[in-house]
Amino acid sequence: MIEPRELGGFPEFPPELMIPRERMMATFRATFVAFGYRPIGTPHVERMEVLAGKGAGSDEVVRQIFEVTNRGGTPGELGLRFDLTVPLARFIARHVDKLGVPFKRYAIGSVFRGERPAKGRLREFVQCDCDTVGTEGVVADAEAAQVIHAALSAAGVPPFTIALNHRKILDGLLATLDLAGRSGPVLRALDKLGKIGRAGVLKELTGGRARAPVEPSATTVMAADTLWAKDPDLEAIGEPTSHKGDPAPPESSHLSEEQANRVLDFVARGRGGAEVLAMAEGELGSNPEAAEGIGRLRAVLDLLDAAGVPESAWTIDLGMARGLDYYTGVVFETTVNNQEGFGSICSGGRYDNLASLFTKRRLPGVGVSIGLDRLVALLETMGRLGPATGATPVLVAQFPGTDPSVAVRLGARLRAAGLGAEVYPQPDSVGKQLGYAEARGYKLAVIVGPDEQARQVFNLKDLAARTQETYPWAELEAAVARSLNP
Amino acid sequence: MIEPRELGGFPEFPPELMIPRERMMATFRATFVAFGYRPIGTPHVERMEVLAGKGAGSDEVVRQIFEVTNRGGTPGELGLRFDLTVPLARFIARHVDKLGVPFKRYAIGSVFRGERPAKGRLREFVQCDCDTVGTEGVVADAEAAQVIHAALSAAGVPPFTIALNHRKILDGLLATLDLAGRSGPVLRALDKLGKIGRAGVLKELTGGRARAPVEPSATTVMAADTLWAKDPDLEAIGEPTSHKGDPAPPESSHLSEEQANRVLDFVARGRGGAEVLAMAEGELGSNPEAAEGIGRLRAVLDLLDAAGVPESAWTIDLGMARGLDYYTGVVFETTVNNQEGFGSICSGGRYDNLASLFTKRRLPGVGVSIGLDRLVALLETMGRLGPATGATPVLVAQFPGTDPSVAVRLGARLRAAGLGAEVYPQPDSVGKQLGYAEARGYKLAVIVGPDEQARQVFNLKDLAARTQETYPWAELEAAVARSLNP
Repeated sequence: MIEPRELGGFPEFPPELMIPRERMMATFRATFVAFGYRPIGTPHVERMEVLAGKGAGSDEVVRQIFEVTNRGGTPGELGLRFDLTVPLARFIARHVDKLGVPFKRYAIGSVFRGERPAKGRLREFVQCDCDTVGTEGVVADAEAAQVIHAALSAAGVPPFTIALNHRKILDGLLATLDLAGRSGPVLRALDKLGKIGRAGVLKELTGGRARAPVEPSATTVMAADTLWAKDPDLEAIGEPTSHKGDPAPPESSHLSEEQANRVLDFVARGRGGAEVLAMAEGELGSNPEAAEGIGRLRAVLDLLDAAGVPESAWTIDLGMARGLDYYTGVVFETTVNNQEGFGSICSGGRYDNLASLFTKRRLPGVGVSIGLDRLVALLETMGRLGPATGATPVLVAQFPGTDPSVAVRLGARLRAAGLGAEVYPQPDSVGKQLGYAEARGYKLAVIVGPDEQARQVFNLKDLAARTQETYPWAELEAAVARSLNP
Repeated sequence: MIEPRELGGFPEFPPELMIPRERMMATFRATFVAFGYRPIGTPHVERMEVLAGKGAGSDEVVRQIFEVTNRGGTPGELGLRFDLTVPLARFIARHVDKLGVPFKRYAIGSVFRGERPAKGRLREFVQCDCDTVGTEGVVADAEAAQVIHAALSAAGVPPFTIALNHRKILDGLLATLDLAGRSGPVLRALDKLGKIGRAGVLKELTGGRARAPVEPSATTVMAADTLWAKDPDLEAIGEPTSHKGDPAPPESSHLSEEQANRVLDFVARGRGGAEVLAMAEGELGSNPEAAEGIGRLRAVLDLLDAAGVPESAWTIDLGMARGLDYYTGVVFETTVNNQEGFGSICSGGRYDNLASLFTKRRLPGVGVSIGLDRLVALLETMGRLGPATGATPVLVAQFPGTDPSVAVRLGARLRAAGLGAEVYPQPDSVGKQLGYAEARGYKLAVIVGPDEQARQVFNLKDLAARTQETYPWAELEAAVARSLNP
């Protein structure tokens, strides 16, 4: 006998969880479609060189790819996708001439990472992505934030905040401090602000605690320490950055105390509304990179206003470091208000060149990715997952000793009328059947015993109100519809 | 530069194919829900012992499982699921006390088999399954055929025929011929009727051509020769039958010429309506097994009639051999009329004991599986795939030289009114933008040039009729809605 246990890190979902998951995926799909994104399908399996980028990326990511081996096949040739972006890059590189640009696509599917199983670290999880490829237009940047707002609002997510940053603002700051090209260690240190505080980050920036150089991937170090920190989306920053933008070489993190304090002062004042951009302009406006980033963010805010995204839904956060070593322009992260410790449920940003590994054609773009598993876990924790009942409100009982064709006929009539109806599959006791219906959240039960069968009537039981009425068979659809929508 | 080529056997889908695929999956999901099936989610990866059934099943199946290996993990521990039934068996064995029975679930997802890539043989393909577990009720048997009929009808599949058979009828026939327990080679030979004809099958049954014993899996032999014969669903008969029912041991196929002719005569008369069951009853009614199978099929037909499934949608086929060595009761196969060579697009049947590998609890049930990839390929061949356009009917152009916030605002207003609207992401020439809209099947374009912006009006272009009207911004939603539903 084989033990049917769950595989660590590979979650499984009973109907109570799968119904809300499917509802949420349908909502995201509808939102993506309403913005003109179209679906593409790519396999769960890709060639290893596509995934690993010929080893050009971080060893950590390659180490996390699951190998897939056909019996008799060559080991190491195939692997499971670890995100939906690399497959998009390969797909568009192959088909761009036929697809044309701009190309807007969405994809919802499982991705796989060989994490050590632990609380909140999944080896298989679902990403819900949309991307606009082949444009540098600011409309696409703003739309990414609009889509986040529309999708999460439509899914009934409690009040949330989309944090916005732009890579070039921090680049400009570092340039004015003679720290150009040293963004890597600065970003990694800044990312720990919430956890080790200003003093800790100051110590790290000034070389007091040179952790970064000895770790294989600073991203992983960042992520490994916090609950749920292995954000499906955020982990993207540990990926071979050659897929999206160019990686910075390893750098020393030793800043002077004055430099470090300037950085920390700047980001401390860098969180808030549009006034933050005025502050940044005052400090960094003469740096062309920073000015570009500030101008872009300002344009995004104008468009969000035009789109009706309320100011309460976003914040500028110039100290938001995650994603900045992966994306090349605007960057987004989204947290549910007062649940920031749970991490980002949706992130994204702009990349200079999506498919540079596969084609010489330059394909800039911008995209977002919702981490379904984390979002569902968060909503479950908050008791906000919504009902686990399906769209089928009626159980047609199979009364012991009656002709089952009666129940089958009545069930088929209800479905033909557009009313979901389950016919109980065997003549158990009526009590058992009603318990089954109640446990599944059915609203009504249709019951035909031998007497009712002879009289061609049925009993309609309201399971919540515990009331029952009798109607002729001919009135089935009307009576059920009336009971469902009194 | 890495070549972004497609991986053999792992198909990818551009929007033109993915839109109909998603529409079809949504239709099947809605059908399953209307019958009271509820979704469960299981991972794409399972432990190899779960998949291979401790090697108890056919070597051929184990050979086709893709191994999944974590770096640093133990090779051979994990594999990709090859169907959705084994994960269901493991899931219900684990959770049956909490879930209770009867348990009705659906699942739609990718499965993986290490086929040699060839025309019509996929290594990754999508199955759409529903099963009722924990009941022997005939209502569930009939419902399986009802669901096939409802799902394929709702998806707009051209006229199709659900072939029905019952394992025990052929078992009874063989018993009356003193061939009890020798069903394996008989079934394998019968399955070739359409291909090698009666004379060929006769020769094989009488030992003239003993192919079956030398092949690793007769199922694979059957399947390997015909276009599309690797039916996602039908291949199930090559699976470890310990998952569903008990496998028959290898047997000699040598029948006497008289025995073989009796079998062939019987199945030749065994295709048609309810009269076929009367014929079978006359010939085999005294055999208790055959009588049970005949009675069960008759009850299924009565219920199909009650459910409103027309007689034109089904046929009895007592010679239908596929699935009989896998299922233990009623068996279904579905072909589109006049496209029988394409193979079955949906099959299923009743099994005695789903989860015997994982639990001592007996869990009989019945289920069906729609092969999405074959169905889509068939409909594509027939030109019946339906429109590849999405639910977004309006492109809001971004006129060069105008404020992009105008287009963003109008787009957001349309979406808020429930009308899908894509805002073109950059100020290309209007001609290019209109070409983009037409290529994607948009019906309308909203265009605001500098003059219109100053006057706060917009041009509404009907892309098919090539007409254009001008309206004030305030009338946006009403004008667009009117143009979409004249």
